[in-house]
Amino acid sequence: MPCDHYASPITPRLLLNTGRLRKNLQRMRKLAAKAGVVLRPHIKTAKSVEIARMATGEDGPLTVSTLAEIAYFRRAGFRDFTYAVGITAEKLDRLIPLLDDDIRIAILLDRPDTARMAAARMQDVAGNIDVLIEIDCGGHRGGLDPQDPALIETARIVAASAKLNLRGVLTHAGQAYGAADRAALKAIAAQERQSAVQAAELLRRNGLPCPVVSIGSTPSVLAAENFDGISEIRPGVYMFMDLKQASLGVCSRDDIAISVAARVIGHNRQNGLYLVDAGALALSQDSSLAGYGSLAPPHRGRIAAVHQEHGFLELEAGSAPLSVGDMVRILPNHACMTAACHDRYHLLEDGRESGETWGRCRGW
Amino acid sequence: MPCDHYASPITPRLLLNTGRLRKNLQRMRKLAAKAGVVLRPHIKTAKSVEIARMATGEDGPLTVSTLAEIAYFRRAGFRDFTYAVGITAEKLDRLIPLLDDDIRIAILLDRPDTARMAAARMQDVAGNIDVLIEIDCGGHRGGLDPQDPALIETARIVAASAKLNLRGVLTHAGQAYGAADRAALKAIAAQERQSAVQAAELLRRNGLPCPVVSIGSTPSVLAAENFDGISEIRPGVYMFMDLKQASLGVCSRDDIAISVAARVIGHNRQNGLYLVDAGALALSQDSSLAGYGSLAPPHRGRIAAVHQEHGFLELEAGSAPLSVGDMVRILPNHACMTAACHDRYHLLEDGRESGETWGRCRGW
Repeated sequence: MPCDHYASPITPRLLLNTGRLRKNLQRMRKLAAKAGVVLRPHIKTAKSVEIARMATGEDGPLTVSTLAEIAYFRRAGFRDFTYAVGITAEKLDRLIPLLDDDIRIAILLDRPDTARMAAARMQDVAGNIDVLIEIDCGGHRGGLDPQDPALIETARIVAASAKLNLRGVLTHAGQAYGAADRAALKAIAAQERQSAVQAAELLRRNGLPCPVVSIGSTPSVLAAENFDGISEIRPGVYMFMDLKQASLGVCSRDDIAISVAARVIGHNRQNGLYLVDAGALALSQDSSLAGYGSLAPPHRGRIAAVHQEHGFLELEAGSAPLSVGDMVRILPNHACMTAACHDRYHLLEDGRESGETWGRCRGW
Repeated sequence: MPCDHYASPITPRLLLNTGRLRKNLQRMRKLAAKAGVVLRPHIKTAKSVEIARMATGEDGPLTVSTLAEIAYFRRAGFRDFTYAVGITAEKLDRLIPLLDDDIRIAILLDRPDTARMAAARMQDVAGNIDVLIEIDCGGHRGGLDPQDPALIETARIVAASAKLNLRGVLTHAGQAYGAADRAALKAIAAQERQSAVQAAELLRRNGLPCPVVSIGSTPSVLAAENFDGISEIRPGVYMFMDLKQASLGVCSRDDIAISVAARVIGHNRQNGLYLVDAGALALSQDSSLAGYGSLAPPHRGRIAAVHQEHGFLELEAGSAPLSVGDMVRILPNHACMTAACHDRYHLLEDGRESGETWGRCRGW
């Protein structure tokens, strides 16, 4: 249950700088327009109706990571979803009742046996569901290597079903997050594009339809040198940006749109660290960078460790000392993880909290 | 917002083995009774009214980590709370309206300046609030070294206020989680007890009241050789136990009462890993042990890596292969973190899901 028991905002709370958000959204829309691709943002980062509307103009196409997101955004008028996590029979059964609507839902398939399961389950259903074949472009998570004979086999099972619409291919270069430098990131982006295009060409050579060629992660899209053969991009983190994206060079720290407001609750004399009231449940335990987040200006320092509701704050050498009761803002390592700790955004407009909040979807 | 859009349970979901829960609760109640100490369980792990009632017999004393927990459990009839995170002025202001009630709330203070803030803010308030002086027993989080002159100074400020009831001292040996072996754990437990007792004696020698001498973490309480001078224990994780506690030797894997149900959604041919539909948001990113959780029997393996909604499952050598669609259960590294990913418990009774669910509190 959400806990709205106290009237005024409490620390820790999640702040959203709407000016930076708008700038980040604008940057990606321009990129998509210039590249001539559809922007189908991955809404798993923001999970907010207001932000989804801003990102797509109105109620445009979304990429989602949970069925809860489909239900949440559908209720708000969105009608075009790609569920970008491998499907299970139980989840397909939950999507089927939605298909009578004017809704469009694409699922991912990457195995002949799962494709057969989907075809069998859809057999007596009134509606149709879209299918994208998931391609592994080197991240080795889901998906088929473009060379894998199972690619054509899976696509043929889909194409043979009157209830499954083969729409194309989708890949995600998750390995972009581990890129050592800009050159490595560009190479990953190129591989992502090539894998998707190669798979699409293979489908077409085999007489199979492939209107959709979908790629996307924020760093690979922002580092990509061309989008030849691509029809759609699916970045998500770009809306907020974070310290990880800054470390990859695709944004600056000044682009980061979310932060966690926290207060200093102690100063340990033994180790010199300050304690703040934002810990693992407010910041997440993402440790993709050293520490668990860095202070936003005017402060300089980082969260060196977290317990459930405590953060251990290490100021940079030479920083003015803090006092117990002072408020700090903590920039996230990974925006998706930190935002998911919170049920709402507290809007920060022109540097001040407006008092307005936007909700978020949660769960599965 | 919670997402109750689909009627039947979905993966990932949090399972609670009620038989194991009862056994774990019984073990700690017996220990407390034998030691002659009050059991004031830390409900930050379970955050559930049903579990709090089982743990305390009815609506007994609770330790909490957020004001949201106070509001949640107060509504369910609980009346006696220790808020075990350093207080801020804003949070004290939120507690004050509750004090007219028959409620008893203790806050922690560990600095003269914060004690002065609390005394000033309480000055014109009708009710009273209890105070425990927080002691640092070596974890170097919050609290004062028992030798620190600020201890008596802080206690005197509290005692001088007609609205602050000086109740005693409280410490938490968080460092127990890092104990290298059983002997180290016993030494930490002894230090925790000694620090609290030493601080209590110092208060009493200075003519200050100290009826409460409170210690507690699950591993230190379970490893403690005696509780001389202690009035209260505050363990929390013991209710569920987890892989970390098993690694510390204070429980076996068969005592772990929660697990995350997930389904196999893929099998990557490149790296041999299975994919499951429980990732960072269902398991947490707690990496206090290698990996992000281990499979419950009959399966053997671990979650080697997590993305937001994907877990990478590595089976132990010699295990029978899994099929896409199979369900597995994942035991948590750290029960507090994993449980916090979920809004409800799905009850597992005598090895079967009963269909009953219990809610959880969330937020601050």
